[in-house]
Amino acid sequence: MDQITVQSPATVSNVVCGFDCLGFALDGPFDEMTVRKIPEPVIRITHRDDYGLPTDPKLNVAGVALQALIDAAEIDFGFEVEIVKHIKPGSGIGSSSASACGAVVAANRLLEHRFSNVELVELAMAGEMIASGSRHADNLAPCIYGGFTLVRSSGPLDIVEIAFPELFATVIHPQIEVKTSEARAILPKDVPLREAVRNWSNLGAFVAALSTGDLDLLARSMVDTIVEPARRALIPRFDELKSASLAAGAIGGGISGSGPSVFMLSESREIAEFVQEAMNIVYAPTGIDFNTYVSRISPHGVRTV
Amino acid sequence: MDQITVQSPATVSNVVCGFDCLGFALDGPFDEMTVRKIPEPVIRITHRDDYGLPTDPKLNVAGVALQALIDAAEIDFGFEVEIVKHIKPGSGIGSSSASACGAVVAANRLLEHRFSNVELVELAMAGEMIASGSRHADNLAPCIYGGFTLVRSSGPLDIVEIAFPELFATVIHPQIEVKTSEARAILPKDVPLREAVRNWSNLGAFVAALSTGDLDLLARSMVDTIVEPARRALIPRFDELKSASLAAGAIGGGISGSGPSVFMLSESREIAEFVQEAMNIVYAPTGIDFNTYVSRISPHGVRTV
Repeated sequence: MDQITVQSPATVSNVVCGFDCLGFALDGPFDEMTVRKIPEPVIRITHRDDYGLPTDPKLNVAGVALQALIDAAEIDFGFEVEIVKHIKPGSGIGSSSASACGAVVAANRLLEHRFSNVELVELAMAGEMIASGSRHADNLAPCIYGGFTLVRSSGPLDIVEIAFPELFATVIHPQIEVKTSEARAILPKDVPLREAVRNWSNLGAFVAALSTGDLDLLARSMVDTIVEPARRALIPRFDELKSASLAAGAIGGGISGSGPSVFMLSESREIAEFVQEAMNIVYAPTGIDFNTYVSRISPHGVRTV
Repeated sequence: MDQITVQSPATVSNVVCGFDCLGFALDGPFDEMTVRKIPEPVIRITHRDDYGLPTDPKLNVAGVALQALIDAAEIDFGFEVEIVKHIKPGSGIGSSSASACGAVVAANRLLEHRFSNVELVELAMAGEMIASGSRHADNLAPCIYGGFTLVRSSGPLDIVEIAFPELFATVIHPQIEVKTSEARAILPKDVPLREAVRNWSNLGAFVAALSTGDLDLLARSMVDTIVEPARRALIPRFDELKSASLAAGAIGGGISGSGPSVFMLSESREIAEFVQEAMNIVYAPTGIDFNTYVSRISPHGVRTV
């Protein structure tokens, strides 16, 4: 096999009380990527979309990730990559992770699965570094493993797959820019031990609730008194989005990644679509362009077409 | 039924990364308590042990918890309680919780299970208050529910039972005094967000590992970079106890409650007994009196004899 086409899904990280560790994969939106072996030991990137992302492989997330894979595999040939991005860069739902993961998973399939999933996340991290400037696997892990993942440690990388019940996400992407660096700078450097305890109690309960499918407990544990209070000001009408979504039947939710997207979890597609309507109603009068998505939480990461 | 005898087990709280929320129940040691209905609306307490605990029901943990139950149940009779404590007060393995829980569970059985488990924890908390001075269910919850419990919130009380594999605990109780107030005062008021994230990532992984029985992950996630570094100085030879236990095959462990007891988890009784020997070897030369215990993690809380 010399060519493969994959779909690389959007992901949500910083899942409420799971700041900097917990993420999940969506069915869509997703990027489409075709990766082809070429005899020359180079990487060639073509974008079939309008985002104007760099095609120099040293500046491109997919290119850097692929180069890391080429180096690790010690191969003497190269890859040509065609990317159709559907996940908008800067949306907060893992756009750069989708590029990095799609590239390495596709290439790995062409190399007959030489690398394990955790190794692929490690390779994709090289790409993610040039996008976010930090070593950070929260979106990469669910993009490759699917489902809910917890990055217990990023050095050495330790990824935990969390069992979960059928769940649906509604995502709203307001078309505003939230710089990751600004969203980082706004965070407290220190937190009161009391608040930290509250957060890890909630995360422990959240993981237990996912594992047992206890949706009431899931709802009670989706509380974030540390990061959300600092970042909600970055997202216009965040509180209204949240209260309207909960009123429409959502289990809970919060900021996706470092924003500007906001996600909500629901127990059925029907409720997730009500939540979407509720979000539309909150955002329609703002004059801010926005997209909304409804998706199952996908048990699959990057998938071959 | 007018009389009942129960065994109320020792419990371990502050389970490494689960500071202030996670606890588990042991088979033993346990206190034995006989509770008897009496026609007069009073509480009478007798101790058949040498700890010299107060018998005035207003000053006695079991008495205060029972009074809370009497008030909540609006009954016009009283209880006589005979207590044989085997769990030394101040040992850090839930001695006062055992008294409070044993009393309310026994009385509740005499009242034909009028109260639910969460209500019993709430009632026992009244007793625990006079022992520790804080509203705090970390030892009460496992003492009543058995197994591993996570107190997601203590107001309103929200207790999560965590599925767990067969596990064994080794506990060493050095006979020194560690005042709970001192152990509290030594804690940092604020923690770096980075360390808090590390801790909740570990706790999330710990809960997942318990649920799936992944003992390797359990071992990797039993890390505490916040509370243990502050409190280990209170316990002579803490580091040696820990390294000798790990060398003997323990999965991991740490300070029980606010000390001075130290616990280790192991995957079999045999290994837990090796760990006990290792602890004995560390402590024998210190000149400090100590007890050690080996117990299964018990799926049962207070049990009727």
